[in-house]
Amino acid sequence: MASAVSADEREQAGSGAWRSGPRTTVRRKAERGRYDRATIEAILDEAFICHLGFCTDGGPVVVPTAYARVGEVLYLHGAPANQALRTVGEGAPVTLAVTLVDGLVLARAGFHHSINYRSVVVYGHAHEVDDEAEKRRALDAVVEHIVPGRTADARGATDSELRATRVVRVTVDEVSAKVRSGGPVDDPEDVEAGGIWAGHIPLSVTAGPPVPDEEDRQALPVPEYASHYRRPGRP
Amino acid sequence: MASAVSADEREQAGSGAWRSGPRTTVRRKAERGRYDRATIEAILDEAFICHLGFCTDGGPVVVPTAYARVGEVLYLHGAPANQALRTVGEGAPVTLAVTLVDGLVLARAGFHHSINYRSVVVYGHAHEVDDEAEKRRALDAVVEHIVPGRTADARGATDSELRATRVVRVTVDEVSAKVRSGGPVDDPEDVEAGGIWAGHIPLSVTAGPPVPDEEDRQALPVPEYASHYRRPGRP
Repeated sequence: MASAVSADEREQAGSGAWRSGPRTTVRRKAERGRYDRATIEAILDEAFICHLGFCTDGGPVVVPTAYARVGEVLYLHGAPANQALRTVGEGAPVTLAVTLVDGLVLARAGFHHSINYRSVVVYGHAHEVDDEAEKRRALDAVVEHIVPGRTADARGATDSELRATRVVRVTVDEVSAKVRSGGPVDDPEDVEAGGIWAGHIPLSVTAGPPVPDEEDRQALPVPEYASHYRRPGRP
Repeated sequence: MASAVSADEREQAGSGAWRSGPRTTVRRKAERGRYDRATIEAILDEAFICHLGFCTDGGPVVVPTAYARVGEVLYLHGAPANQALRTVGEGAPVTLAVTLVDGLVLARAGFHHSINYRSVVVYGHAHEVDDEAEKRRALDAVVEHIVPGRTADARGATDSELRATRVVRVTVDEVSAKVRSGGPVDDPEDVEAGGIWAGHIPLSVTAGPPVPDEEDRQALPVPEYASHYRRPGRP
C-alpha cells in the first residue's frame, strides 16, 4: 500500500543522523507511522526492554534485552559468553523493536478489535565496544535509563567487572515509530445497530512497593527513585 | 557455557510435541532455563504480544504482533497486505519471543543490577491458513486470548472480513522459557560493607477504568471482562 506520509514529514527525522527509509516507512495503517525525532526518542526513553533480532545460518534469532539510548546510539550489554551479543558484535545487521502496550480496543465487530501501542523499530549495525571509558558510560547509561538516579548510589564497576561485561553499540541506519491510540473504529452499521458494548481498556505498567533485600540488616531507607518509581513521561 | 539443566528436565517438555533443542537450551544463566510445558504455556497465555523475527535479503526483521496459542500451535493475523505475514506465510523459519517484565533488581553493585522477567522463545515455521473454519477459530482465539469472554458479545467475522484477514499458523520446532525472580545477588563484600539500599521493585501491568466509545448513545453497561480486566494467573 502507498504511504500516506509525505516526504516532508519523513524529513523531520533528518534533524539528526536518524532517518526513516524504505524499511521503516509504515505501509500498513500508514496513518500510524511517526517519523519525528521527539516521538521516537520518547518511546525509546520510556521503554527499557527491546527485542534484538539478527540472522544466523540456523535462521532468525530474537532475544529480549535491556538497552539505553545515548544520543543517537543504543547500547546493549551482557556477559562475554552471551551468544547473541557475541554473534552481532562484529558489525552484523540487527533490528531492535521496542513496544509499549497502552490498551485494548474492544470494537463491536471482532474484526475491528485492536491494541493501543507505541512502537519503534530500529534497523542498524552492532559493534562491540572495546574502549573502557565508553563501556563505563554505556553501563551507567543502562542503569540510569532503567532506574534514573541509581548510579549515584550503586557501587561502580571494578576493572574486572568491566572485563566481564560485553557492551555492544548499535548505530541506527533507519528508524521509525508506529502509534495507535483512542477508541474503536467500527462500521457505521454496527454502531447504528447498537447492543454491543464498545470502548477501550487503558493498560499501564505500575510499580509496587519496593522489597528490601533480606540481607540488609541496616534497614536502610528506601530511596525516592525506588519508592516512587515511574517511567519518564508517565504519571 | 555448559548447560546446568539435565536431559531429564528437558524431556519434561516432551510430554507433547514441544521440545527444547540446541537453539533453546539456555546456556548463559542456565539456572534460569525452564523446559516444562506448564511454565511455557503459562507465560504464553499471560502475555498477548510477541515479537516475530524473520530473515529477509535485506537483513533481520522484528515486528510486534498479537498472537494466540491453540494447543501446540500459535496463530498470528493481519491484513492481507501485511508484509511480515506475507513474507513468512510460505513456510519460513520464524522466531517468536514473548516477554513479561516482573520487576527491577537493584543490587549494591551496578554490575549485579538485573530485571525480573519470564520469557519464552519459540523457533518454528509459519504457514498461511487457507481453511475458512480454521481461520475463524484462529481469529476468535486471538480475541478470546486477549479479552477472555469477548467473543460471546462481539459480532463475528463476515465472509468478506475473513477474506480481508491473513492468518498464519506457527508450528513449534523448539521452545523454552527463561525466568528470573527475587532480589539481588550481591558480592559478600558489598553486603558486608552496607550503606547502599538494595532490593527489587515489582512491576505489573494494570488495567484502568474502561473508556466507553463516544458513539455509544445507549450507555450500555460495561461487561465484567472489561471492568475487571486481568490476565490469566494474575490477581
